[in-house]
Amino acid sequence: MSVYRLLISCPDAHGLVAVVSQFILEHGGNIKEAHHHLDDQNKHFFMRIEVESNSVSCTLDVFKNAFEKLANQYNMAWKISDSAQLKRVLIMGSLSSHCVADLLHRGHESELEGEIVGVLSNHNKLSKLASWYDVDFKKVSINKDTKNVDIIKMTQAVDEFNPDVIVLARYMQIIPQDMCDKYAGKIINIHHSFLPSFVGANPYERAAERGVKLIGATCHYVTANLDEGPIIEQDVVRVNHGDSADDMKKMGQDVEKITLAKGLQFHLEDRVLTCNNKTVVFS
Amino acid sequence: MSVYRLLISCPDAHGLVAVVSQFILEHGGNIKEAHHHLDDQNKHFFMRIEVESNSVSCTLDVFKNAFEKLANQYNMAWKISDSAQLKRVLIMGSLSSHCVADLLHRGHESELEGEIVGVLSNHNKLSKLASWYDVDFKKVSINKDTKNVDIIKMTQAVDEFNPDVIVLARYMQIIPQDMCDKYAGKIINIHHSFLPSFVGANPYERAAERGVKLIGATCHYVTANLDEGPIIEQDVVRVNHGDSADDMKKMGQDVEKITLAKGLQFHLEDRVLTCNNKTVVFS
Amino acid sequence: MSVYRLLISCPDAHGLVAVVSQFILEHGGNIKEAHHHLDDQNKHFFMRIEVESNSVSCTLDVFKNAFEKLANQYNMAWKISDSAQLKRVLIMGSLSSHCVADLLHRGHESELEGEIVGVLSNHNKLSKLASWYDVDFKKVSINKDTKNVDIIKMTQAVDEFNPDVIVLARYMQIIPQDMCDKYAGKIINIHHSFLPSFVGANPYERAAERGVKLIGATCHYVTANLDEGPIIEQDVVRVNHGDSADDMKKMGQDVEKITLAKGLQFHLEDRVLTCNNKTVVFS
Amino acid sequence: MSVYRLLISCPDAHGLVAVVSQFILEHGGNIKEAHHHLDDQNKHFFMRIEVESNSVSCTLDVFKNAFEKLANQYNMAWKISDSAQLKRVLIMGSLSSHCVADLLHRGHESELEGEIVGVLSNHNKLSKLASWYDVDFKKVSINKDTKNVDIIKMTQAVDEFNPDVIVLARYMQIIPQDMCDKYAGKIINIHHSFLPSFVGANPYERAAERGVKLIGATCHYVTANLDEGPIIEQDVVRVNHGDSADDMKKMGQDVEKITLAKGLQFHLEDRVLTCNNKTVVFS
Repeated sequence: MSVYRLLISCPDAHGLVAVVSQFILEHGGNIKEAHHHLDDQNKHFFMRIEVESNSVSCTLDVFKNAFEKLANQYNMAWKISDSAQLKRVLIMGSLSSHCVADLLHRGHESELEGEIVGVLSNHNKLSKLASWYDVDFKKVSINKDTKNVDIIKMTQAVDEFNPDVIVLARYMQIIPQDMCDKYAGKIINIHHSFLPSFVGANPYERAAERGVKLIGATCHYVTANLDEGPIIEQDVVRVNHGDSADDMKKMGQDVEKITLAKGLQFHLEDRVLTCNNKTVVFS
Repeated sequence: MSVYRLLISCPDAHGLVAVVSQFILEHGGNIKEAHHHLDDQNKHFFMRIEVESNSVSCTLDVFKNAFEKLANQYNMAWKISDSAQLKRVLIMGSLSSHCVADLLHRGHESELEGEIVGVLSNHNKLSKLASWYDVDFKKVSINKDTKNVDIIKMTQAVDEFNPDVIVLARYMQIIPQDMCDKYAGKIINIHHSFLPSFVGANPYERAAERGVKLIGATCHYVTANLDEGPIIEQDVVRVNHGDSADDMKKMGQDVEKITLAKGLQFHLEDRVLTCNNKTVVFS
Repeated sequence: MSVYRLLISCPDAHGLVAVVSQFILEHGGNIKEAHHHLDDQNKHFFMRIEVESNSVSCTLDVFKNAFEKLANQYNMAWKISDSAQLKRVLIMGSLSSHCVADLLHRGHESELEGEIVGVLSNHNKLSKLASWYDVDFKKVSINKDTKNVDIIKMTQAVDEFNPDVIVLARYMQIIPQDMCDKYAGKIINIHHSFLPSFVGANPYERAAERGVKLIGATCHYVTANLDEGPIIEQDVVRVNHGDSADDMKKMGQDVEKITLAKGLQFHLEDRVLTCNNKTVVFS
Repeated sequence: MSVYRLLISCPDAHGLVAVVSQFILEHGGNIKEAHHHLDDQNKHFFMRIEVESNSVSCTLDVFKNAFEKLANQYNMAWKISDSAQLKRVLIMGSLSSHCVADLLHRGHESELEGEIVGVLSNHNKLSKLASWYDVDFKKVSINKDTKNVDIIKMTQAVDEFNPDVIVLARYMQIIPQDMCDKYAGKIINIHHSFLPSFVGANPYERAAERGVKLIGATCHYVTANLDEGPIIEQDVVRVNHGDSADDMKKMGQDVEKITLAKGLQFHLEDRVLTCNNKTVVFS
């Protein structure tokens, strides 16, 4: 049974919950799930409401148009999405296959609320895997000498997939500013450390060197500032003195896979709102 | 700043959120936090709303009376509590001091949303600790030969403390049926295993014998069925073959302390609703 | 660089560590890793030593023959395995693919210290996946009416793979006593609950019904007593009132995958010794 | 039953385990527990052996003298301690009482392998608590204007307690270089973040600002470089968008308490060796 998901973010105001739920009631809507959060410091209000689609007495377009007036009145940033309309997911990978294989398998088993429309990589390695799962594969090499041109080719390839979400599944290449802007809030990365520890390259080596007792992974939205976008999900796993950087890399892969899948799923179910480089996750 | 906490549990009905939030709005109330949960299987709805007390335009009594009509209309089980009115907490302990000391210290540091009004025990051991924290201590021995009479004395002592919540902090004695009934939903126990594993006596010994790799603790409401009441909170800690039952007991104490404090705090903040021997915890 | 792995289990005796390390030294062996454990209660000693193969001054057979004398003297149960000799792993699955896909991918990426020699199932579903990973697939149906015969066919098929380890990756069929005996200590199962909670069928449904706040998975050796064999590894994940039995099933799959892979890897690296239905895991 | 704990750290060499265990055997010693670790990268070997005291056929002094010859031969850094000789623990605290109260209670219940000989603070707040536990309390104020002199007074007060271990239980003052040197490897701090994230002041505020989904605590040895000494133990707890910096502070206190107690206990049981700003923890 499909639902409409209403996401709202606005300055706090008296009676917000009442006015929104009254609006839904007037349109026959049955609320299946509702979450609210008041950011006390910034006096900003966040809301996510799931309404059973078939309980609404008008079309989605009419519903949206009607809501727009209310939204303007309260200065809301808002979005209504239909769960029946699966988001198009583009996976970008490189040589590491663990995250890509995990996502493809979840897609194949219909565990993700999204449709994986392609795998884009700068190497051929993932091609066979993608084809087995009947997912389009596209390779765009990124070479040192022709980087500027290659990056443009890559972003064009991205556009051709017409994605709603782009998942950097250990893609390992920097995303250009204009692509970050174009797909703002739609590019999800998995970083192989517990941010803000070990921003940048070789986090496992640095974790081993520092002698930490837990290593982690961070799923976050990509912004132009490397590894500094809003964090969606994080997790850790215990390590000890016997674990080399290589061991940590192996152990970390499981954390990466699960943290990425969890963060992506939150996004696909429209459970994530952002505010001041932080996320509100209504899980 | 104090809040009124409205807890509702009722059969699912169209427009519930709208009608309740509309009611609050009409009484001037500002919603600070709101949680909803629909139990899909049983078509039962749960709601918890925090309203800023000083935004409400009438007295709490008037507000309650007005709400009662609405509640009856929707067949609601409901409760409105004032966060300014701290719940009276009675701690019952025995020979183990870790949970009692932890709760007393939290009470002393104002970490708990409640007032610890007494420590009741079947032994003298905790008396000095209670007195240092300026908390009344009462001993009621429970002897094999005079158990029936002793239990009656104990329940009388409980009543004299006039508690809103009774915390069994490793009290280790069975609570009689009539006390369970009288304080239904108000007695909180910490069991030193990850229920439903190891119901009953000596869970650490049995965990060691079975060779489990994680041990745990369970905070639950007490019912007449030993260790089978609704679970509020659980947690675990990793053990290995090198840990004896005694080691597990030591390691488990930290889990017990924290799990009990967390579960109690949920209860004190009116975040727990029960339904069919399960809890809804709006955290 | 390959190693010999020496596993010893024997009654505690004075000088055991000295006598074994002296023996290794006399044969030129360089110890790379060593673990000891004294089970204080049963006065039983456990040892695992990794010796660099190329440091040993004789053949493995000569080394083993020499060690046998020492072993007899101290009444040791013992085993020496060569890490260069990968164990043959047979995966048995059914309709759930998450564990099988995860193991096949780990095998493919050489993350496991073993060679996956086949997938045996009572359904066809996993056939395509196995073939993509170039792993033999064999189907043996288990039907209600012909169960006795089918089980015999199944055990014959198992034998034909000549496995060193059999992994029940959510195989969901009961293993007959004679197969349990034949492959004692060589069949590894993943049970989808935190044992000893929810032994048997439908653990997620029962976990949801009981209202637990954590669900888990248990990797254990299979014995003739269902879900009661020695536990190798366990893990849990947090759930809440909003999670249905179906949600728990989905969330539990990740715990199952990782717990099974971890337990299997411990076994493949000869890190697990058993004693009185418990395991010693030298990790 | 007391044990001698032998800690060894030396360049890797052929036959180390054999030669040490042979030495112990020759002196009648019964090994109760033994751990080894080879740092492959630095070719450095670490060993910890527990020998039952009453099995050794000579005095501890004779044993030590004999071992010294062996140690010199292999260029060992080494230490033999007697578990019957409890380490003197000095707790240094300030205004936060959670860690201090937790340690005092553990000391009182004989959970720690050490004797708490005093609480030293720059405030009076902890005085009553210390006195209840019959532990000496000493106040040395640290004032802005007289900092240099105050710090000298503080270090003198420390010396007067003649401590084997100094625990900074949220002491919040910088330890001078000469005290770091004098008590190298003997000062244990709890930092209220998951290092290396949020080194320095106000980690919870910065964690809230960054929007991390887990917060943590780190128990480490103090060196002259703030928050950069060898890490003994770390742990984390999950937070979400609803948790303010103040909430995180409260939640973090439980992690701090347990992480500090765990790290301290490892140290008291002589389970920690350091090497290149990292620890080997034989737990």
